[in-house]
Amino acid sequence: MEFITINATYPGGQYPIYIGTHLLENPALLQRHVHAKQVMVVTNETLAPLYLSRLEQAFQDYQYDQLIIPDGEQYKTLTQMSAILDALIAKKHHRDTTLIALGGGVVGDMTGFAAACYQRGVAFIQIPTTLLSQVDASIGGKTAVNHPAGKNLIGAFHQPSAVIIDIHTLNSLPAREFQAGIAEIIKAALIQDTHFFHWLEKNIELLLARDEKILCHAIARACEIKRDIVAQDEKEQNQRALLNLGHTFAHAIEQNLGYGRWLHGEAVGVGLILAANLSVATDRLSTSDAERIYKLIQKSNLPTELPNELKYDKLLSAMQGDKKVLANKLRFVLLSAIGRAEITQDITAAQIKTLFVQYGVFS
Amino acid sequence: MEFITINATYPGGQYPIYIGTHLLENPALLQRHVHAKQVMVVTNETLAPLYLSRLEQAFQDYQYDQLIIPDGEQYKTLTQMSAILDALIAKKHHRDTTLIALGGGVVGDMTGFAAACYQRGVAFIQIPTTLLSQVDASIGGKTAVNHPAGKNLIGAFHQPSAVIIDIHTLNSLPAREFQAGIAEIIKAALIQDTHFFHWLEKNIELLLARDEKILCHAIARACEIKRDIVAQDEKEQNQRALLNLGHTFAHAIEQNLGYGRWLHGEAVGVGLILAANLSVATDRLSTSDAERIYKLIQKSNLPTELPNELKYDKLLSAMQGDKKVLANKLRFVLLSAIGRAEITQDITAAQIKTLFVQYGVFS
Repeated sequence: MEFITINATYPGGQYPIYIGTHLLENPALLQRHVHAKQVMVVTNETLAPLYLSRLEQAFQDYQYDQLIIPDGEQYKTLTQMSAILDALIAKKHHRDTTLIALGGGVVGDMTGFAAACYQRGVAFIQIPTTLLSQVDASIGGKTAVNHPAGKNLIGAFHQPSAVIIDIHTLNSLPAREFQAGIAEIIKAALIQDTHFFHWLEKNIELLLARDEKILCHAIARACEIKRDIVAQDEKEQNQRALLNLGHTFAHAIEQNLGYGRWLHGEAVGVGLILAANLSVATDRLSTSDAERIYKLIQKSNLPTELPNELKYDKLLSAMQGDKKVLANKLRFVLLSAIGRAEITQDITAAQIKTLFVQYGVFS
Repeated sequence: MEFITINATYPGGQYPIYIGTHLLENPALLQRHVHAKQVMVVTNETLAPLYLSRLEQAFQDYQYDQLIIPDGEQYKTLTQMSAILDALIAKKHHRDTTLIALGGGVVGDMTGFAAACYQRGVAFIQIPTTLLSQVDASIGGKTAVNHPAGKNLIGAFHQPSAVIIDIHTLNSLPAREFQAGIAEIIKAALIQDTHFFHWLEKNIELLLARDEKILCHAIARACEIKRDIVAQDEKEQNQRALLNLGHTFAHAIEQNLGYGRWLHGEAVGVGLILAANLSVATDRLSTSDAERIYKLIQKSNLPTELPNELKYDKLLSAMQGDKKVLANKLRFVLLSAIGRAEITQDITAAQIKTLFVQYGVFS
């Protein structure tokens, strides 16, 4: 199988997204976006034994350094990011160095943020190895670390030089993480592609079976949708907020459960159902459409219910601290149809309370 | 006295630089660049008792928060920057908040970096209170913190919404710090304004006496020069490196002496003399021009000699770790005349060694 290339543009430049197989065994492709003779690969302890040797081989004629960090969302911190900077400094990396993030969203977001801050910005390449990061986190230049008070509160907009998606890296991905990635693919379809949503309904079993052709198409289409939205609004002043469909709920759920208990994509799955129901409650969406959304998420083996230990007050408080809040107003992304999302400012706390009560969540 | 306004532009927008007196007693001006209802002022313990009450008064109808950090370059760290982020999060500042940096380069660089990273970028206003930060650090959007291995190694390009220079804040500035600021003014003249250099030679006594009219002109002209260079090259790919005249030396000196023993501007003063001498040694500059540069720095009461405890090997090693190094080549900014700087790549380690030996620095 060959690879396909999607070109992403942003105000200051552009970068390619390569999607295919055997890309990690393609030294010429890996070297193409490294412009000087220094490379530092950041990965985690789970992925290092699987893929690191291929990169080491591709960069044997370079100053090749690597940093292996612990695996897990709890390590996506300013402290851990600072360790990446320390390694770059210790190995005397210059301003023309290239960082390579080999891993999921944690590695990608944190390495990207380190690249954004090291000497006020150096190049970096994303090699996402989870479905979630392939269809979402690696595209669009959002980099960040978490803060105890909330996810991704500290970060930068810093675009990669290239995104290299080798779908064979998904072979080692546990089913639960794979399914979590599907939530972001469904989200992309819901935002602006009715046809893609239909296609997903038809092909969900093959997608779950990780059929290569189906997988490549799903990843490519989700990347294109994200690419198009980001191109209109790199810094999330406006349209880019559409990508937060389901995410205001998801972040509040993750924060209240404690990071790591639910995967981000799992919280997004329920978040999409909640957003659909809120869209119905505010007369935007038909109940039949909301039902189709519910069913596709259910078929993807994603959770469809909220744990009833959650408290309404704490969820709302987390939502109010969410980055998407502007001037103390609650901002939501809702659906007016499958394939058509819109940003709203008119949701009241009472409406959210009613919604949560339907899910067995009380104050 | 009225204030003057200089407009600075960058690829994504523009901002005004106000220079004058009584600006901190001008609530309308202070409020002009705050676009929502939240403000957080960051300052240090020395300045807080002098000026903070004026800002508090100007923002009495806002959510006004303040953070007072310890005074000194040794606090310009990722840890201290993280404390600013913690304060913003604790006070639930949203993405449309405005940070105000009231202080010298340490406060300005660190607050600017916090603004760059908080929720991937919020607005900030620079109110520089030292001569050095008024003519240099507050203009151009370079923000950073130090690392034990080197100055400003961690940071971002993030432009302010406004720079407010009230020259009365200089009244409380010790003579040594004031003189350090003059080094950056001389640097600006040397880079691209022969006429301004002549003017400085003529007015140096009045400038040292802090004559208001002379001071305003010197600050404004230095700001304009920096503004013009930055406008051509926001991210220091090329022309902006001219502003590093004297700085490759200065950073190496500061790092080897230990931060804080010499003020940055003092190291820049000697750095300018070294750069002038290297320019003479490489047949770029006349000895008479080098002598004029030496004399103006001497008249400004800045150090003109290197402490002989410095070691050549360590200085060179620091220079090689400097951000200005590209692809392992040593890059210098040198002078072909007073008022004409150029970027060079052809300096050898042997030439630098010869220069240092002249200053009593050996391996």
